[in-house]
Amino acid sequence: MARRIAHKEKVSALGEFGLIDRVRKLVGNPASAICGIGDDAAVLPLDPKKYLLLTADMLTEGVHFTNKTSGEAIGRKAIASSISDIAAMGGLPRYAVVSIGLKPSTSWAKVEAIYRGMRKIAKKFGTGIVGGDTVRHAKLVINVAMIGEVGKKHLVRRNGARPGDQIFVTGGLGRSLAGERHLRFIPRVDQAQYLVSRFKPNAMIDISDGLVADLGHILAQSRTGAVLEEASIPLNKGARLKDALYDGEDFELLFTMAKSKSWRLQNQRKGKFMFHRIGEVTKRRGIQLMTPAGRLKKAVIKGYTHF
Amino acid sequence: MARRIAHKEKVSALGEFGLIDRVRKLVGNPASAICGIGDDAAVLPLDPKKYLLLTADMLTEGVHFTNKTSGEAIGRKAIASSISDIAAMGGLPRYAVVSIGLKPSTSWAKVEAIYRGMRKIAKKFGTGIVGGDTVRHAKLVINVAMIGEVGKKHLVRRNGARPGDQIFVTGGLGRSLAGERHLRFIPRVDQAQYLVSRFKPNAMIDISDGLVADLGHILAQSRTGAVLEEASIPLNKGARLKDALYDGEDFELLFTMAKSKSWRLQNQRKGKFMFHRIGEVTKRRGIQLMTPAGRLKKAVIKGYTHF
Repeated sequence: MARRIAHKEKVSALGEFGLIDRVRKLVGNPASAICGIGDDAAVLPLDPKKYLLLTADMLTEGVHFTNKTSGEAIGRKAIASSISDIAAMGGLPRYAVVSIGLKPSTSWAKVEAIYRGMRKIAKKFGTGIVGGDTVRHAKLVINVAMIGEVGKKHLVRRNGARPGDQIFVTGGLGRSLAGERHLRFIPRVDQAQYLVSRFKPNAMIDISDGLVADLGHILAQSRTGAVLEEASIPLNKGARLKDALYDGEDFELLFTMAKSKSWRLQNQRKGKFMFHRIGEVTKRRGIQLMTPAGRLKKAVIKGYTHF
Repeated sequence: MARRIAHKEKVSALGEFGLIDRVRKLVGNPASAICGIGDDAAVLPLDPKKYLLLTADMLTEGVHFTNKTSGEAIGRKAIASSISDIAAMGGLPRYAVVSIGLKPSTSWAKVEAIYRGMRKIAKKFGTGIVGGDTVRHAKLVINVAMIGEVGKKHLVRRNGARPGDQIFVTGGLGRSLAGERHLRFIPRVDQAQYLVSRFKPNAMIDISDGLVADLGHILAQSRTGAVLEEASIPLNKGARLKDALYDGEDFELLFTMAKSKSWRLQNQRKGKFMFHRIGEVTKRRGIQLMTPAGRLKKAVIKGYTHF
């Protein structure tokens, strides 16, 4: 009976993560996959030293861009989102296939701009666009599927955070969608490569749903909790704390690292990159915020969801 | 100046294949790819004996299915279309990522039916669904990206047809969209495996745009022409010759094979599969139809196009 009632539920009542959870249970994961549904990319067997990564991102008008967004920015974002997913696993992007749904009245100039934007950022990160699909559709919709590869010892998943791990982000957060950052972000491939080769994080994700929501994904899979120090969270220009906590599409990396390594990471003399320590993983579940005065309060777990 | 004028053109004026051609020229193919845009799947380096295949198919409401099509049939078709692409390269499907754009008011029952349809056919062909994306969208849109693998010596592309090759199809053609065949077709993986391991075809494609259009793709890439024998083309129930020539979404394999091998293929005592010889590749470009009376006439090159 419970099942029948659940059947009538709308996707909006399940929410995005409720939906993904049900799909995961329904579909299962093939035995040969190292990691299936539920991380930034699927992790698949490749060769004795490497795994193959596979990810897909769908971008639609009215959600990920507007009808005012330039073609070049749309194309750039579509490819950069997938590169960011590959980076979050510790991998390097390799090849992409692009599916695009278009109105027949779309101008070639617009389509060219989209592919130009894609080509530019793909080239920058060594990714080849090798195929795809073009179909008729009422509204612009783009799907990028990307494969990448990662050395087995460099793979970082969401489920490895341990109590005592220090939590870091690679850059400022908040107001990415309000500004243009969600169109111009640089996928953190270089930072991720630096990290996995020298300071292997225990868990990593790219921030697309929002800091609290994406930290929530790491913590749920790692069966841990966290304390975030409000005063340590780097804010983008014009962003307030709540924007940094709950806005989506920052595309910075969020990772956790054993305390011993984290000291080394924070005390590098001349570090190539900025890594901001923002809190600590705890055995106690849930996310708590520590105010500048040192008080702890429970964080509301919310963020961008599609449904 | 010519370029400026071309810029103003609408996608509908370019047509689907004009569009793909421009995108291919714009994007190029990475040096490391054995085959990029322009075949059923991209062919990428994998290991000393095998290539990796990567393909994507986008299905949208109103084009590939209607709002009356059952969720299970939609999901089945989405996965089967990509499996068919992998089969057409001589490969075996391995893993898929599924992106789905949905209205928030969609019922879980519908979504579950879609994934159930996917899971069933994916399992049948040894394919794991390992990830994807779920986004809010005004109309149902599904993208399946699939990876497969193919032994290097088993790879069949579109560009290998040679004058004198015999042309075959794996089954009846026509009225697939008018009936329900486009939702129920069996991807010809078994036939393709049988062919590549014993009678290596020179060129192969799956028929999605229509016999004449897809033969046209093989011939254009192979710089050859063909004669199709009207009386030899197998017709689906209720289909007339023109339906078999021009309807899309048959999802049978169309392949060409050296004459010497083709005799063996046609004269197997107890062949497991039916292969229908329908014509011959010619040095002379274009497609000609031979009537039952033996007269030759030029075929109009047309088929299903999105724009």
